[in-house]
Amino acid sequence: MCALDNRQAAARVMARCDELAAISESADGLTRVYLSPEHQRANALVGEWMQGAGMRTWQDAVGNICGRYEGQSAGAQALLLGSHLDTVRNAGRYDGMLGVIAAIEVVQRFHDLGIRLPLAIEIVGFGDEEGTRFGITLLGSRGLTGSWPQQWLAQADADGISVAQAMTAWGLDGSAIASAARPVGDFAAYLELHIEQGPCLEREALALGVVTAINGARRLNCHFIGQAGHAGTVPMSHRQDALAAAAHWMVAIEARTRQHGPQLVATVGRLQCHPGAVNVIPGEVELTLDVRGPEDHALAELLDDLLGEGEAIARQRGLSFAASQYYGICATRCDAAMQASLAQVLSEVQGRSLSLPSGAGHDAIAMAERWPVGMLFVRCAGGISHNPAEAVAAEDVGLAVDAYARWAQALAEQPPESAA
Amino acid sequence: MCALDNRQAAARVMARCDELAAISESADGLTRVYLSPEHQRANALVGEWMQGAGMRTWQDAVGNICGRYEGQSAGAQALLLGSHLDTVRNAGRYDGMLGVIAAIEVVQRFHDLGIRLPLAIEIVGFGDEEGTRFGITLLGSRGLTGSWPQQWLAQADADGISVAQAMTAWGLDGSAIASAARPVGDFAAYLELHIEQGPCLEREALALGVVTAINGARRLNCHFIGQAGHAGTVPMSHRQDALAAAAHWMVAIEARTRQHGPQLVATVGRLQCHPGAVNVIPGEVELTLDVRGPEDHALAELLDDLLGEGEAIARQRGLSFAASQYYGICATRCDAAMQASLAQVLSEVQGRSLSLPSGAGHDAIAMAERWPVGMLFVRCAGGISHNPAEAVAAEDVGLAVDAYARWAQALAEQPPESAA
Repeated sequence: MCALDNRQAAARVMARCDELAAISESADGLTRVYLSPEHQRANALVGEWMQGAGMRTWQDAVGNICGRYEGQSAGAQALLLGSHLDTVRNAGRYDGMLGVIAAIEVVQRFHDLGIRLPLAIEIVGFGDEEGTRFGITLLGSRGLTGSWPQQWLAQADADGISVAQAMTAWGLDGSAIASAARPVGDFAAYLELHIEQGPCLEREALALGVVTAINGARRLNCHFIGQAGHAGTVPMSHRQDALAAAAHWMVAIEARTRQHGPQLVATVGRLQCHPGAVNVIPGEVELTLDVRGPEDHALAELLDDLLGEGEAIARQRGLSFAASQYYGICATRCDAAMQASLAQVLSEVQGRSLSLPSGAGHDAIAMAERWPVGMLFVRCAGGISHNPAEAVAAEDVGLAVDAYARWAQALAEQPPESAA
Repeated sequence: MCALDNRQAAARVMARCDELAAISESADGLTRVYLSPEHQRANALVGEWMQGAGMRTWQDAVGNICGRYEGQSAGAQALLLGSHLDTVRNAGRYDGMLGVIAAIEVVQRFHDLGIRLPLAIEIVGFGDEEGTRFGITLLGSRGLTGSWPQQWLAQADADGISVAQAMTAWGLDGSAIASAARPVGDFAAYLELHIEQGPCLEREALALGVVTAINGARRLNCHFIGQAGHAGTVPMSHRQDALAAAAHWMVAIEARTRQHGPQLVATVGRLQCHPGAVNVIPGEVELTLDVRGPEDHALAELLDDLLGEGEAIARQRGLSFAASQYYGICATRCDAAMQASLAQVLSEVQGRSLSLPSGAGHDAIAMAERWPVGMLFVRCAGGISHNPAEAVAAEDVGLAVDAYARWAQALAEQPPESAA
């Protein structure tokens, strides 16, 4: 496509992101949660845009808005393009929405040019990815995969309204959720465009990137127990200072994580020391450890190393150390063939391609249970997300729509082999 | 003295500590604050014990209980022995009280043996050292030195009762405080026996120690400001993690303080990180720094070094660092001749002498404004203090009374030169 078309597409996408951002439960700031009146209005608006791009639309049994653009033959297998339409509280306007609106723009392009591909293209705007309302996540994509746990229906929001009750009030039927599930044969692959939510593309001065995997993650509560004491009367050599031990460990966490490779991250985000008085040596420190990486094996090795180090530091200082994992999710690998075809496209549109893992979670985690998945990242300003300051450049969006269309066309002509 | 005398003296001292500990505002645990009914009862009991040791007693204008045992000639200059009778909340029974009761036992010994020394001996049981009630400390000793600030009279307790009002209710006259001040010529020196409140004597397997100085102290609020970020999306190499920087600094604080010498201590007792979520890189950390040491010059050098290190770590990591001192007290040196005479006594009674600084504050800080001061430390179990678990061994107390009596006798025969 020519640069002018990209600019026009970008302008429409940006305007639609703004229009969608106005559908919020609060006047100041964007908050749109699952099964809310705003969810209904957003689905209606997105459905109109899909229809304008020549798609047949429907809302499925879990509240996702869906559209289909037929291929060269009616009823063909489809490529599924999608992302989510719900938000965190006081959100930015691109996280999720950009992926849905850009997908519509891709179909609009084929529609305007009268192009029909060997595969149909479907788009899904998921009703819940963030989990803002009910504290459970990926409700939209789990509807399509058919892996919606029955007990989710009883999950209540802050007002005590259960998912089942909210569905009824919204016009859905909690007993019909299974009908949202799509047969594996319906889709050749799932493609998702999303803002990076991190700083890597910006630092590499690139608009677009190929996602290699969505990082696996582990979260642990950790604990050093030493001996509290008078800050004035206990010599340095006689201390069992839990905070000094924790500091020693945190320095090791940072150094060792870097040694284990550039795609692994480890974060101590919360730390509390007890008793927490200026003139008392801390006897006890509680801290969290969050480790993430694109490969489960490497992540497990890193975590073993870090916990071993924590124990060694505690032993050497005469303290005790304990850690317990309270959350874990495996890494989701993006399909290799889809990565390769996207890398080829990115080399064409921006001169070179960059592959990077996704540190944040996405609908593709659920979709990968049943279909090959691929993700295209778009640079966002300062890596800032989940924040009203979230921003993307219109020029990047134009390039993204162009790349997304080329990628979809390439995959429609040569679909990835289905996952086992 | 023979071992039997020491055992009898120790038994009486221990029993008196128990008896005094029963005078508390609460039935469970010991709390006795300045200008309370319990303060009055404690003064009365201690006054009786002083009289039993052949002393003339009186209560001074700030509520200290005082006693005098005349020397070889009436009206002679005195050695002043003392410590405090007030407590922290839920206190131990030896912090302060042991020093007063042991001093009475020393005079009792001279009295029983009919010994009169070249100097008189006075004892003072200070009414307030801890500052528990009014949040201002050393009210008793500042009465004797005449350095009681006028504005203290307006200082209120938690119930809004001012020092002046409390004095009136207790039978004192706030306008007569100056009359508590003692002329410099009244005393040749101030001697204080106190539990160590730290673990050094216990670790050296010694009952008694010579205090070299009461540590000077500085307290600072410190601050690292980096950049908060998503724990999953920001690579380790791109982070400005305020907690990682603080950890780096805390490790340096520990190492450098040890390098500066065994008598210096530095403590980070309180640390808060923001925003404080498991999945967010901390953008901001606030922490306290408490540094102490027996020599002001060495303490200032250490602090400069630590703050320079904090700045260097912040600079190297692209963060900002700030620190502001909110409390400082100079070191109080114990008189060299008094240290020497006490060291001589300790070599006699326990085979060897150990000199150590005091990490905690004492009445001797105020007294050193006007008189040479010396302090004798007694081992306490586990270094534990300000806690009901505070404990001393009766055997150590017997040795302490013996040493204290020998020291007082030596000083009465060869007083230190007066401070300039």
